[in-house]
Amino acid sequence: MKRFFLLTVALLTVWAAAAQMRFVDATELNLIGKALPTPHPYHRIDTVAYKGFTKGENQQVRCSAGLALVFKTNSTRIDLEPQYTSFVYAGASTPRVASEGFDLYIRKDGEWLYAASRAPKKRGEAYTMISRMDSSEKECLLYLPNYSELTSLRVGVDEGATITPMENPFRHKIVIFGSSFTHGVSTSRAGMSYPMQIGRNTGLCFCSIACSGNCKLQPYFADYLGDVKDADAMVFDAFSNPDAKMIEERLIPFIERIRAKLPSTPLIFVQTIYRESGNFDLRSRKIEEDKRDMARRQMAEAMKRFDNVYFVDKADLTGTDHVTSADGTHPSDLGYWRWAQNLQPELLKVFRKCGIR
Amino acid sequence: MKRFFLLTVALLTVWAAAAQMRFVDATELNLIGKALPTPHPYHRIDTVAYKGFTKGENQQVRCSAGLALVFKTNSTRIDLEPQYTSFVYAGASTPRVASEGFDLYIRKDGEWLYAASRAPKKRGEAYTMISRMDSSEKECLLYLPNYSELTSLRVGVDEGATITPMENPFRHKIVIFGSSFTHGVSTSRAGMSYPMQIGRNTGLCFCSIACSGNCKLQPYFADYLGDVKDADAMVFDAFSNPDAKMIEERLIPFIERIRAKLPSTPLIFVQTIYRESGNFDLRSRKIEEDKRDMARRQMAEAMKRFDNVYFVDKADLTGTDHVTSADGTHPSDLGYWRWAQNLQPELLKVFRKCGIR
Repeated sequence: MKRFFLLTVALLTVWAAAAQMRFVDATELNLIGKALPTPHPYHRIDTVAYKGFTKGENQQVRCSAGLALVFKTNSTRIDLEPQYTSFVYAGASTPRVASEGFDLYIRKDGEWLYAASRAPKKRGEAYTMISRMDSSEKECLLYLPNYSELTSLRVGVDEGATITPMENPFRHKIVIFGSSFTHGVSTSRAGMSYPMQIGRNTGLCFCSIACSGNCKLQPYFADYLGDVKDADAMVFDAFSNPDAKMIEERLIPFIERIRAKLPSTPLIFVQTIYRESGNFDLRSRKIEEDKRDMARRQMAEAMKRFDNVYFVDKADLTGTDHVTSADGTHPSDLGYWRWAQNLQPELLKVFRKCGIR
Repeated sequence: MKRFFLLTVALLTVWAAAAQMRFVDATELNLIGKALPTPHPYHRIDTVAYKGFTKGENQQVRCSAGLALVFKTNSTRIDLEPQYTSFVYAGASTPRVASEGFDLYIRKDGEWLYAASRAPKKRGEAYTMISRMDSSEKECLLYLPNYSELTSLRVGVDEGATITPMENPFRHKIVIFGSSFTHGVSTSRAGMSYPMQIGRNTGLCFCSIACSGNCKLQPYFADYLGDVKDADAMVFDAFSNPDAKMIEERLIPFIERIRAKLPSTPLIFVQTIYRESGNFDLRSRKIEEDKRDMARRQMAEAMKRFDNVYFVDKADLTGTDHVTSADGTHPSDLGYWRWAQNLQPELLKVFRKCGIR
């Protein structure tokens, strides 16, 4: 009898929890952070229209890194029901919250304040992101997973609550193309990649084409970027993945190829950061030093040849105390936070020169 | 023919890589960070001798969180061959590097400098932690996984290189008992839990009995701690897991039980940190505020009743900008780093009072 009673209570609880939520498809809200529209809602690049990418690159640009949903709701609880393809990220330094979870901020006193970050316990199941809030109307910014391919997403609110799309709260359009660093590998959650942090801090809209390990000045990426006619500027973490020889051979042709389509868009290249693997691994240290030297040389040449091409070459963006690495290559949240804090004023200086405020 | 040639080259490469390494069992080196000896080398508490723990607590104290190997070697490369039990940590906010990987530091100019952190690609396989170093003799500090149970560990060095146990470079014996925070849940690597950071910064030896979610002032933990006769002090992150009612009921009896065995060992309790889940989740905020208030009340009473009992009740140990959370509960590396930086001077003040320098 006791068991029957407990079962009844359990069933009623499940029913009550399910009954009180109303789900809307995320496509009814506003998805921001995409450089160009795609037929598939959660892909960053239309891999049917744009060719030349490797299989791995195709997979990566179908991941939702840098995309975010903006909406208003007076719900006291927000549930999510994401559906994923079978692709699962296997990197050892990135937790599931970042690779397949969501990261929620709510605007308070004009600032984006952390609200919740969570991955489903089991992929594809509806789960509660946050609950037990007051019922005032809130402006929500929800980052999608860094390293998963979504097929659909539904957002659940209290049955009687409102949920409406919100205008993009970020201004301008800055496309950022980069490596695993820009992708946010080893961040604790999607909103902690340095472009997303700088976006929240400054109110500027960053559209990320980060492609972990594959930001190598490839011509087909230049072709894609050249089609983003309405970008106010483009930022490149372009010296983290290629070796010195690749930078020597590819940088000028890469810029030329973009310039053929975009004669004047500001192109801002950023030096690659110090890797902690070089503290004792002498070959790693040499490879990284060679890359940085070559980037300096080639950027000097590029800035002679092209107008509106800039190079941010600041040392020690993640500090000098060597405590910021997750795996010798990628920073942890500590490193990404310092990177955002230190890069932001440098980028803002260049943006101001280009009339981006 | 070409395929045969490539296969031969591949086999020779594998053979050469294998042949050049010599493995020693980690038990031949020096394992530090254990409060009391255990028959099993990588368990923190002898769960055969100490009873009363739940199944989950038994599992956790068999994990190697806070244990570290210290040795000297002139090898240019260090390989590891860990063997694990089938237990796999399932937390979504902790990357594999922290839960089953290793974290290596090498002493340089008197400081512990980050060298490498890495998990095996596949559990139980030998893998290279670091290579291509110079061949000077190095003092190595290797943290074991935070959240795995090791059955064995072998350390590989160049065939002609030396590897010898090293004396414990840390002084005193500070036992630290705490929650997932002390355990290091959501750190990027084992060396980033706040006790291990403070240990490297100060040279003090912290022995961690962290037990994620299970630091609830249980009498059987008091019994265990009471047996650590040679501890210079004990630190408790004891208000993160229990609710206000538990703190009210259990704190005084818990201290009494330890004091029965340890009449004068300094017992230093630390206030629980702010949880970012409370930014909007009103119930979470209330629960945490109630806990902190109750901790204050009960600690005032405890300090009246017992000598050498201290309370570190400092706010905002992880900052006030709300950017440090991995999942609403646990800090990311950014939060753990700030926590260590801010808690360290407070602990040192109390340690100095107790003659620990």
